[in-house]
Amino acid sequence: MNVREEAKKVKLAAPYMAAASLKVRTQALQNIVMALEDHREEIFQANALDVQAAVDAGVAQAVIKRLKFDENKLRDAIAGLRQMAELKDPLGKVTLKRELDQGLLLQRVTVPIGVIGVIFEARPDALIQISALCIMSGNCAILKGGKETAGTNKVLFELVHQAAVEAGLPEGCLLQVELHNEIDELLKCQGEVDLLIPRGSNKFVQYIMDNTNIPVMGHAAGICHIYLDEKADLAEAVPVILDAKTQYPAVCNAVETLLVNRKIADTALPMVLNALVQAGVKLRGSEEVAKRAGALVAAGKLGNADDVEKYAVEVMGEEDFDTEYTDMIISIKLVDNVAEAVDHINKFGSHHTDCILTKDDVAADYFLKMVDSAGVYWNCSTRFADGFRYGFGAEVGVSTGKLHARGPVGLEGLVTYKYQLIGHGQQVGDYVSGKKEFHHRDLERRAQVYTS
Amino acid sequence: MNVREEAKKVKLAAPYMAAASLKVRTQALQNIVMALEDHREEIFQANALDVQAAVDAGVAQAVIKRLKFDENKLRDAIAGLRQMAELKDPLGKVTLKRELDQGLLLQRVTVPIGVIGVIFEARPDALIQISALCIMSGNCAILKGGKETAGTNKVLFELVHQAAVEAGLPEGCLLQVELHNEIDELLKCQGEVDLLIPRGSNKFVQYIMDNTNIPVMGHAAGICHIYLDEKADLAEAVPVILDAKTQYPAVCNAVETLLVNRKIADTALPMVLNALVQAGVKLRGSEEVAKRAGALVAAGKLGNADDVEKYAVEVMGEEDFDTEYTDMIISIKLVDNVAEAVDHINKFGSHHTDCILTKDDVAADYFLKMVDSAGVYWNCSTRFADGFRYGFGAEVGVSTGKLHARGPVGLEGLVTYKYQLIGHGQQVGDYVSGKKEFHHRDLERRAQVYTS
Repeated sequence: MNVREEAKKVKLAAPYMAAASLKVRTQALQNIVMALEDHREEIFQANALDVQAAVDAGVAQAVIKRLKFDENKLRDAIAGLRQMAELKDPLGKVTLKRELDQGLLLQRVTVPIGVIGVIFEARPDALIQISALCIMSGNCAILKGGKETAGTNKVLFELVHQAAVEAGLPEGCLLQVELHNEIDELLKCQGEVDLLIPRGSNKFVQYIMDNTNIPVMGHAAGICHIYLDEKADLAEAVPVILDAKTQYPAVCNAVETLLVNRKIADTALPMVLNALVQAGVKLRGSEEVAKRAGALVAAGKLGNADDVEKYAVEVMGEEDFDTEYTDMIISIKLVDNVAEAVDHINKFGSHHTDCILTKDDVAADYFLKMVDSAGVYWNCSTRFADGFRYGFGAEVGVSTGKLHARGPVGLEGLVTYKYQLIGHGQQVGDYVSGKKEFHHRDLERRAQVYTS
Repeated sequence: MNVREEAKKVKLAAPYMAAASLKVRTQALQNIVMALEDHREEIFQANALDVQAAVDAGVAQAVIKRLKFDENKLRDAIAGLRQMAELKDPLGKVTLKRELDQGLLLQRVTVPIGVIGVIFEARPDALIQISALCIMSGNCAILKGGKETAGTNKVLFELVHQAAVEAGLPEGCLLQVELHNEIDELLKCQGEVDLLIPRGSNKFVQYIMDNTNIPVMGHAAGICHIYLDEKADLAEAVPVILDAKTQYPAVCNAVETLLVNRKIADTALPMVLNALVQAGVKLRGSEEVAKRAGALVAAGKLGNADDVEKYAVEVMGEEDFDTEYTDMIISIKLVDNVAEAVDHINKFGSHHTDCILTKDDVAADYFLKMVDSAGVYWNCSTRFADGFRYGFGAEVGVSTGKLHARGPVGLEGLVTYKYQLIGHGQQVGDYVSGKKEFHHRDLERRAQVYTS
């Protein structure tokens, strides 16, 4: 496939996609539901082949689980599509309505971004959800899924594409790129692709970010922190730390580093370390933390004499605090106060999600203001950083960039806006000469006006 | 100067800048006003040297006019600062307030982007305005102005920086980069600079866009179109075309290409071409337009026999319609209908500002929906595409990109947001197990809540 030539066709379809009514877009989602139901056996068969090939290749069991597309996942995917069809239309929202002068009306209206390239992990449900998000937001999409589910994706893509076209969307609304080396071609489609959303490993996302001039939305790393303040309620705090680390350690919003206020270290460390170790978490930390943990064990305040090993804190250098484990490992460091915690987070974090545990309003206010992250949390688990939990209905990814969308990105993050100016022959010369004057009167934004 | 080391200091100042109150930020603007008034002679003297050097170097008169900083420009700059201090605070706006579950409150709040690098043309008033915009929006700024006003900029920067620090803003809130070769160092400060805003020539902006991984906001080209529809009111339309081309041809929102519906060419061309030529505009166009213009002149319907030259349309190839003249030149082409006009604009335009002149609602609706530009206009001059005319109070530039801010960018375009999640020890595990359920209740967004 000549990716650029195909992308050009997609680009030509974008204005037609942008003009598609909500009715047509939701019809497309309904058609996809029907197509998935009607062709379930075909999908399962293709998926069985993908899974068998992965098993034969010795792929890890955890990954196999993600590749598998069964009745349960089909049911969830369909439920997701039905929910998405009920979401508020993200397009055509009037976010500014201002009469610049009599008979000269400015409106700022939400519109699709255009053509979005999404490169995602080997998960068949991801293809369905991403296609649906792009359709609902009026965007054309170029999709590249993980190679381990190439067979399933091929079947799913045909079904989704046909369903969309039958609803009245343009042929070019969706394009599938199947070969890994075509990703590099996609990265060069600056005139055709308006936005790239890469999902996957740190290294992969960073590669995309470093090798394209197309704007990229996403996150390479999720180095999330919890700061345990001197005024924390430890009975409430310890379960939050445990949840943030152990509930699902493989994901980007799991905590990687715990910063403990030095003033409460003697009380807090035994409780926190004990809870973490009991849950199977391995400890790393500064030399100070390692020494204190060792002393606590020696004094009989932490664990038993026969599991000294389990409570040992592996000493790490300051510079290693920028590590994302995505595993049952945590880094621990002591700090003097909230200011030192914030400095550490802004230096070593990835601007994803960071949390303070405290009952002190002043410390919390400082933390929420000064931490430069997409999510700044107070007394709750970092694992809440997710589009579904935020109530967005669906999520295309999480952005640690600061431009456009930040944090979990749902439909709202897939739109931009345009300014419409509707006049009656107005000329700028009249305003420059002083013959006319702007009065800039904001109007109620109930609906778009479409009459000159 | 080691730009990267200095930029790191600016980055460290960014959270303090983000936390600065509206009172401190407006005090900074007031201090700048006082500093400018108190040091006017010093500024004028430095500027006189810059202007003299430019005159000696044989710089064009039009450019000299921009370099000059006199009583009038000082007065305008001060008026602009006073107006800006009156604008609504762009920070701390709550754009989403949702109770995810009892006692678990999500707020999306506007915050500064962080560190913005602005590279701008040699115009002393630009330094003042850009600094003020960044201060008002809580951003740190790294400024590089055009070399022809280096002396004036040095004086202005010292005054502005000191005024800001005296108001209570951090030392690192503003940094000036003075050498042209330091721009390339700035382009590499990916970890320190969150956004680059380059202003200047096509070629310069394109160079910045091609040579950095930092997000860039701006526009390389302004290839604006007017489509004269078959249902246009020519008496209203011709003055709009004239205004769009001639009122200030050197700027990005001036029209470069006129597309005329073939059905009205016989009536429209004589009126339009006559008005343009009388105003001193040079004509270019397709072979068809050239022939028709020639025939009109020969038939005595356009100009006199003795000024055939003036009415001659220089024939241009289709591929040359992507030219930005920023001069008294216009390209003209005939099209069959609004659809062909839209296709031409989406192919050759720069997604800046494009206009339809018509009394036909259906054609206008199609145009406004299908043209993929920051500004889509109906029956008014493209020259209105400007932050001041839109009522933004100030403008840092115009963006033809689609991400983050589009079109004229004022204070609102210099902010991003963060999500604050305020809880009471909530853990994700409880929601996954079904022990708890989200209820996602949107609340009134009157003010930020700051109590856990």
